[in-house]
Amino acid sequence: MQQYPSIVLENAVNEFAKLPGIGRKTALRLALFLLKQKDEDVELFGNTMIELKKSVHFCRTCHNISDFDECEICADPNRDKTTVCVVESIKDVMAIENTNAYKGVYHLLGGLISPMNGIGPNDLEIASLVERIANNEIKEIVLALNPNMEGDTTCFFIYRKLVDFDIKITTIARGVAIGDELEYADEITLGRSIINRINYSG
Amino acid sequence: MQQYPSIVLENAVNEFAKLPGIGRKTALRLALFLLKQKDEDVELFGNTMIELKKSVHFCRTCHNISDFDECEICADPNRDKTTVCVVESIKDVMAIENTNAYKGVYHLLGGLISPMNGIGPNDLEIASLVERIANNEIKEIVLALNPNMEGDTTCFFIYRKLVDFDIKITTIARGVAIGDELEYADEITLGRSIINRINYSG
Repeated sequence: MQQYPSIVLENAVNEFAKLPGIGRKTALRLALFLLKQKDEDVELFGNTMIELKKSVHFCRTCHNISDFDECEICADPNRDKTTVCVVESIKDVMAIENTNAYKGVYHLLGGLISPMNGIGPNDLEIASLVERIANNEIKEIVLALNPNMEGDTTCFFIYRKLVDFDIKITTIARGVAIGDELEYADEITLGRSIINRINYSG
Repeated sequence: MQQYPSIVLENAVNEFAKLPGIGRKTALRLALFLLKQKDEDVELFGNTMIELKKSVHFCRTCHNISDFDECEICADPNRDKTTVCVVESIKDVMAIENTNAYKGVYHLLGGLISPMNGIGPNDLEIASLVERIANNEIKEIVLALNPNMEGDTTCFFIYRKLVDFDIKITTIARGVAIGDELEYADEITLGRSIINRINYSG
């Protein structure tokens, strides 16, 4: 355990070290960096974080982060409200939005089913997804969850909940990434991309 | 440029991204982490940083970070006030303190002479070091700066400033680290450790 020469410095290091991926050495570097900044800049830093937590809203429809009760995507009249893409978190929304390839709306689960971490279906926005489908005219659900055990479990759970509705349930295509070389692709990905081969229209 | 769904989130990402070594992706991860924490925890985080800048003091003698006008080391009657170790920053003080091998006091320069970065001798606590030596009974100055161009330049500059005083000027030993193997040591380090060989008393 290192001895810090000042209690306020130690407090700052402790707070920084609570952040994910930041150890005590990095935390000290960040605290010393803040010490070198102007008073008003450090005040802005601290107040921005407090403000973030205080004034952020979550969209009442898709649970995305927003400045208002309804997010920009749900409020946009040009978006196709009959197609709902189910994602884990806001990072996935940002990634998909960056592609400019999707014109529907989203539904954020807030996580994935993970018994190892004590996260069950009731901790996620799955009930609200079922309710949303029951009460709105929705034609297609696109499951866009990460291709790992948690993602697959969650996909299957949602599929079972939705199978009785008269909607199309799809999932994003898995396959060899553009620019990747076949010989270096892993067997499962390459296998799936052969099984799910599509008509060549190029 | 990524589009953030909320202005308060974007502000928080911008603030985190100002920290050294933190890019925009990590900044987003940190901001989303804060969003998941309790209100009072985020408030504590923000206020701790503001408090750090507001209430930190610098020791009037050695310029170390402290909660008071005089740091714990300078205030300690058991420390040898006649030996002053000159270091770049508080991180070096913490590293040397952790060795439990030094019982003197410190003098923090606040940086190293670096013309590339526009840092000259007047930006550092060198004048105050000379004044400290002129006005106090100091027998030895230990130069403990990093062994690179900036460190060597700074050492030489300080040496020239102090050479007329009747004090011993030393520098920390360079050599092969304990646990290192000779065959893998770089030539300069190994060369210096041969030139500066010491009597074997083991």
